[in-house]
Amino acid sequence: MSILIKNSKIVTQNEERKILEGDLYIEDDLIVEIGKVNVEAEFVLKNKIIMPGLINTHTHLPMTLMRGYGDDLPLEEWLTTKIWPIERKLNEKMIKAGTRLAFIEMISTGTTCCADMYFFEDTIAEVALEMGMRCFAGFSIIDFDTPEMKSEMLLPECEKFIKKWKKNEMVKPVVAPHSTYSCSPETLQKSSELAKRYDVLLHTHCSETRNEVYTVLKKYKSRPLEQLKKNGMLTEKTILAHCGWITKGEVMEIAKSGACVSHNPVSNMKLATGGYTPLPELFNAGAVVTLGTDGAASNNKLDMFETMKFAALIHKHHRWDASIVNAQQTLDMATVNAGKFFGVNASIEEGKKADVICLEIEPNLIPIHNIVSHIVYSASGFNVSDVIINGKMIMRGREFIYVDKNKIMEEAEKAKEELLSK
Amino acid sequence: MSILIKNSKIVTQNEERKILEGDLYIEDDLIVEIGKVNVEAEFVLKNKIIMPGLINTHTHLPMTLMRGYGDDLPLEEWLTTKIWPIERKLNEKMIKAGTRLAFIEMISTGTTCCADMYFFEDTIAEVALEMGMRCFAGFSIIDFDTPEMKSEMLLPECEKFIKKWKKNEMVKPVVAPHSTYSCSPETLQKSSELAKRYDVLLHTHCSETRNEVYTVLKKYKSRPLEQLKKNGMLTEKTILAHCGWITKGEVMEIAKSGACVSHNPVSNMKLATGGYTPLPELFNAGAVVTLGTDGAASNNKLDMFETMKFAALIHKHHRWDASIVNAQQTLDMATVNAGKFFGVNASIEEGKKADVICLEIEPNLIPIHNIVSHIVYSASGFNVSDVIINGKMIMRGREFIYVDKNKIMEEAEKAKEELLSK
Repeated sequence: MSILIKNSKIVTQNEERKILEGDLYIEDDLIVEIGKVNVEAEFVLKNKIIMPGLINTHTHLPMTLMRGYGDDLPLEEWLTTKIWPIERKLNEKMIKAGTRLAFIEMISTGTTCCADMYFFEDTIAEVALEMGMRCFAGFSIIDFDTPEMKSEMLLPECEKFIKKWKKNEMVKPVVAPHSTYSCSPETLQKSSELAKRYDVLLHTHCSETRNEVYTVLKKYKSRPLEQLKKNGMLTEKTILAHCGWITKGEVMEIAKSGACVSHNPVSNMKLATGGYTPLPELFNAGAVVTLGTDGAASNNKLDMFETMKFAALIHKHHRWDASIVNAQQTLDMATVNAGKFFGVNASIEEGKKADVICLEIEPNLIPIHNIVSHIVYSASGFNVSDVIINGKMIMRGREFIYVDKNKIMEEAEKAKEELLSK
Repeated sequence: MSILIKNSKIVTQNEERKILEGDLYIEDDLIVEIGKVNVEAEFVLKNKIIMPGLINTHTHLPMTLMRGYGDDLPLEEWLTTKIWPIERKLNEKMIKAGTRLAFIEMISTGTTCCADMYFFEDTIAEVALEMGMRCFAGFSIIDFDTPEMKSEMLLPECEKFIKKWKKNEMVKPVVAPHSTYSCSPETLQKSSELAKRYDVLLHTHCSETRNEVYTVLKKYKSRPLEQLKKNGMLTEKTILAHCGWITKGEVMEIAKSGACVSHNPVSNMKLATGGYTPLPELFNAGAVVTLGTDGAASNNKLDMFETMKFAALIHKHHRWDASIVNAQQTLDMATVNAGKFFGVNASIEEGKKADVICLEIEPNLIPIHNIVSHIVYSASGFNVSDVIINGKMIMRGREFIYVDKNKIMEEAEKAKEELLSK
């Protein structure tokens, strides 16, 4: 496949964070040329803002099916009376429907790579492959039975899952023990050993709520991060979702370990966790800081543009300092910081993999004083007109090329009906 | 003009907050019938979410020209080194360009009525009329010369402005003394007398920052709200923008007065004011609470859907309570609360004025568990497909019918160039 995008502004996110003006040419899976390009191409676009695709480092894809189901409830009540009872009824067909819906929402709002964590992860991985999404598929490990299988089957099935997907280019297997409050030390240890054995990533929740911190502290005499560390889970291959209630000492521990923090401001605010992932301290310590939406049940969407804006604004307000978490730092979290951690290209440079999105310049992006500011503070996911993943044009002019959007929406609606009627 | 919208979900925002399924028929400026309607109509739409147009109760329209100009700066530095110097260079032509841009952004994201406050307000009012927008045009009164005229001319010119627009159906004149820190007691008094004499609204900033509160307290021995009250400005016809730093006593004063609070969460967070407009207390006291975007220079957009989401989430997080500021309360702020205060219809009921918007059901609004939740937490302004103001179809399928969107965008870009080059 060949794609030529003419006469555009290019937010490269290269080392110097250069903004270029010109053309971009993509062939097969690579960015071939940037500048003044005169070639024939299968797809020709023009007058766009070109930027790297966004990377969502923490989500639960099939939870789109619970979007708007039980809002405005305290976290505990939301989980126990709404989410957990309905999750028990999930089956493979519903998972497919919810995951497809998640991917069309994500892709149409500019996300080209995500780190998921849920049950039925093999089904999710298959859907990712079918949709052309880059996905770090987290096989959930937890100390209770899932709607898919008995608890004791999770680790052996996860190993099979790793073997199946290890060599896939687009979908990578991840071991995802749920958290320190839902996994015993033994489960955490076995998970980390499994990940180490196959050299794959780990993904877990860490210090999302204050209650979690004190529950774990009471039970194990360790805060969640210590508990992870003691059980081999604090590594340079670990995604730590949330970290809303971590200490300054823990900031240093995380930075030293090389683990990746996934900051999920929208979900944290909606669930009223009260915590503030300490971004300025994490930046200063040199930690890897990235952004996630969390699942659509607690967000309630999967739009990384919205997440960027919330991420920048929440900290400014909290610290009474408008200069904190600036636009460039925020865009970095959603692109290159995550890209570096995952080993996925998240810049626009010749010879690199083409995970590229184009924005249509609508009234909300006019006039142009500063494109990076516009991306973080003014853009919506709906400004995304075209999405290229691994060199393949997945969405063109907001139309999906390979999948039937309406059918996916209908099937998700049907899956919800079935879920509620069971 | 006649408009028929078939087979839709209708969020009425009537007294009972009913959600209906069916058709909606609009003729001339009125909602004529809701239910099963079989008539011929000039415009026929189908399968939408129909809801009242949103009301933005605090903005500075031409500031779209400064969108992204000087972000990530502390408030004081932002104003003194960026905004004020550039505002001095504004002329009527630029004001027109910036205001047109603001209106196409607002309309295309579902706002059908706004309360503005700026210089060159007569020009702004003319543009509102030209674009078909419902606008409460606030003529700024301030104790220094504006780019338009000498300070001493403001009150007499404001009176002329009131006389010119008083009887207009779509554009209503408002007296807008800027604030207690930029207007002397005498200016406030004269402004309130002028508004009283012509029975028009007042619009002012109140307790946006902590610094403002202490500056005013030091200078006048009164906090901003007291200062307004002492000078005749705390009335049932006053819009108080921000109120981020008010006391419990002030909450009661505001509720008793019948004044309208315009909460601007995005701007407050972006400028890092640190204050939290006390919505739960204002609701409990029975105060009129509404939402605004503020100007695009501090937001950086004019999307009331985004503002609704920020408004709901900021308070949940701050109070550690996910049930605070729920979806229905948030939608009420953006519709009926403001409508009642302004005397503008903001519900979908037979016989009422037709200020109506339609949402296209995209992946982010699927599946449908709860439409009001979707409007507040999942929708984007870009879901708005059609906008009807005073019965007139202004935007259809995201295309503007009467104005040239591309030309407006080009002229705004040119105005910015001129502004920077002067």
